[in-house]
Amino acid sequence: MSIKDRIQEANREAFSRFEKATPVWVDVRSAIDVLPNMTRSTILHAGPPIRWEDMCGPQKMGVVQGILHEGLAQTEAEAEALIAQGAITVAPCHDYGAVGGMAGITTASSPLAVVHDPVHDTWGYSQLFQGPATGLQSRDHYNREARKRWTWLETVLAPTLSAALRTTAGIPVKPVIARSLEMGDECHNRNSAGSNIILNAIILAIFDTCTDHERLRDVLGYLKINDQFSLCVSMAMGKALANAISDIEYSTVVSTMCRNGVEFGIKVSGLGDRWFTAPANRIHGLYFSSEWSDADAVPDIGDSSIMETIGLGGHVQAAAPALQQFVNGSFARAQSVVRDMAQITVDSLNEFKISNMDFIGAPAAIDIRKVVKTGVTPVIDTAIAHRKGGVIGAGQTTAPLDCFAQALKAFGEKHAGNA
Amino acid sequence: MSIKDRIQEANREAFSRFEKATPVWVDVRSAIDVLPNMTRSTILHAGPPIRWEDMCGPQKMGVVQGILHEGLAQTEAEAEALIAQGAITVAPCHDYGAVGGMAGITTASSPLAVVHDPVHDTWGYSQLFQGPATGLQSRDHYNREARKRWTWLETVLAPTLSAALRTTAGIPVKPVIARSLEMGDECHNRNSAGSNIILNAIILAIFDTCTDHERLRDVLGYLKINDQFSLCVSMAMGKALANAISDIEYSTVVSTMCRNGVEFGIKVSGLGDRWFTAPANRIHGLYFSSEWSDADAVPDIGDSSIMETIGLGGHVQAAAPALQQFVNGSFARAQSVVRDMAQITVDSLNEFKISNMDFIGAPAAIDIRKVVKTGVTPVIDTAIAHRKGGVIGAGQTTAPLDCFAQALKAFGEKHAGNA
Repeated sequence: MSIKDRIQEANREAFSRFEKATPVWVDVRSAIDVLPNMTRSTILHAGPPIRWEDMCGPQKMGVVQGILHEGLAQTEAEAEALIAQGAITVAPCHDYGAVGGMAGITTASSPLAVVHDPVHDTWGYSQLFQGPATGLQSRDHYNREARKRWTWLETVLAPTLSAALRTTAGIPVKPVIARSLEMGDECHNRNSAGSNIILNAIILAIFDTCTDHERLRDVLGYLKINDQFSLCVSMAMGKALANAISDIEYSTVVSTMCRNGVEFGIKVSGLGDRWFTAPANRIHGLYFSSEWSDADAVPDIGDSSIMETIGLGGHVQAAAPALQQFVNGSFARAQSVVRDMAQITVDSLNEFKISNMDFIGAPAAIDIRKVVKTGVTPVIDTAIAHRKGGVIGAGQTTAPLDCFAQALKAFGEKHAGNA
Repeated sequence: MSIKDRIQEANREAFSRFEKATPVWVDVRSAIDVLPNMTRSTILHAGPPIRWEDMCGPQKMGVVQGILHEGLAQTEAEAEALIAQGAITVAPCHDYGAVGGMAGITTASSPLAVVHDPVHDTWGYSQLFQGPATGLQSRDHYNREARKRWTWLETVLAPTLSAALRTTAGIPVKPVIARSLEMGDECHNRNSAGSNIILNAIILAIFDTCTDHERLRDVLGYLKINDQFSLCVSMAMGKALANAISDIEYSTVVSTMCRNGVEFGIKVSGLGDRWFTAPANRIHGLYFSSEWSDADAVPDIGDSSIMETIGLGGHVQAAAPALQQFVNGSFARAQSVVRDMAQITVDSLNEFKISNMDFIGAPAAIDIRKVVKTGVTPVIDTAIAHRKGGVIGAGQTTAPLDCFAQALKAFGEKHAGNA
């Protein structure tokens, strides 16, 4: 079999694993309880590996606040000293089996949405969001008030969701995605429908398992108002799917795309755990308030690009025409992005349909060869983080071509002996 | 001022009332408590006036079951005898200020969604749906089991919703519609998003006012599973808006469109309370089960075409491309229907945007002159009723041209003296 045929076959296999997976949201658990190799002194972050001193503002602050939150230090100075001594393991969420939105700060106590794919027996974990009060995303405000919120997530929300989920057979996530796509979500920047659907799916189970009236009201209040909640479940699903294709010999399909506000990083199925990175692009979008401008924003950040990795978000932009308002776009433009993504992917997922493009499927499984050949890079819908923390806007960006070029070069070197 | 200018001005006024209205869902009340002239022995039905003996199957049966439900007779034979004696007033919902989905059977005890528009001080009332267990629509199954459900609506759902709503300032309905349109609803055949949004808007108020755990669970269960619930609120809104334009001298804008399964009826703003009717068209669509076919279906039925009367449903079909599956259509076809509707309406409502047509507004305020001139009649999204009751499918139909031609003739006669 020629190398080209082997690649073809391996890439079909990767795509088919995306197709065959049946991921289910089964639980909410603390990072320390579920992530392999997690320790009390490990702080995880979004994106590819980066030293603390090289991090962008929100991520750097997040690591420090994570140390304080875990009681490893009492002051910011103490926390920084611990980092300098090498007493804290600072590592990417992705390398621990998890994903984290925006800065992605995940500590031992962080409650994670747990998604399991029984077909490939893979797991995916994603942190929960703080809630809209502090800018939608988890752990992106770094102060005493924000840490109170983390404690609420850990002590109230997580156990309530966990108890409810355990009385169900879990919530199959793909049908939630499929219905959301029919309802104007692209499942990255817009999750209004998905969050409602998840709330509907779990509300009676919460009701039946939570007997404390005040707690019940509190949790329903969080879920009802949180238009982005389903993203954390979708991201955990994304990671479970990505894990299913993390190591297919000969496959040139992208298994990871993520950003830390400084660099964009990818992994490729046939190249296993190796990172390929390039400077993260800026985001083209709108700020939620006129007080902010590009000068306040950090470049592309977060593991939420797991959604594009599996063919959602920017890849199905026409499903969410409302988002065009962020980029001063048009429906025609949204459709053209979808067609562009079809150029760089293996195939279209039939179960994720774009109804206003006559039900074509989501273009999924990015092939680094096609990216390099066409020069078309994945379009990523994303939120915008402030240099000092907090989500201040939303828009679009693209993955930098150079990651894909480096990966393709490495792939060529690895198989240099083959015909 | 020429008659043409007067008409123009009157029609702008009608459109502007649709624009300026700020309808709010304020309560759920029994028909007898809120409908002017309602009596214990009055049974209301959908569509234009019709004698009981001329009604289609589900409506005829519905009237009889309504009489039994109100305790006016003990057997069907007794109920029919009462009708024959003239002891029962049988009249259109529309003539009592209300609207009723499908057969539209509304009796003294029927709980109605109450919507108020403070700008024009108009009210709209719509019956609540039985819930999905019996085919989504209210009062379309006529047997002992269905009447138990009516009793549940009256004794459990209605008081719970009423108590919750009264602790709020009411729920503004236009923003619910606007968000639903962004989320794949056209607000007639598809109300998935709207129903979720309404549930979200009211859930904490229900929680705070209903202390009975079982009742609370029951009501949440009904609301969470009922993908069409918001339609009854939207229809009540529609009626409030239609009432705001019910009598504008010189206006050729349609203020009512409804069907009783035999005839399609309209009223026109400048012609006040007069009905213009023509045989109801058949519905082109899909049946929910292969056991049914066109032979089981009654022609177009229900007051739900109040949605098209105010520019929603069929008029904004491109907002809900998923519905094209019912008519074997395409997204291009859905867009072309919207463009057709723009030909026969006064203007587009900016607040009801179709995001996947680059945010054009809903074509609203049907002008009978434009309908007759172009031969284009309103496209109506609608469910399909079985001859023996129950909703068995969904699809699309059109209003018959003849109603509009008759109305235009009457308008010409009325103003024959004018230049």
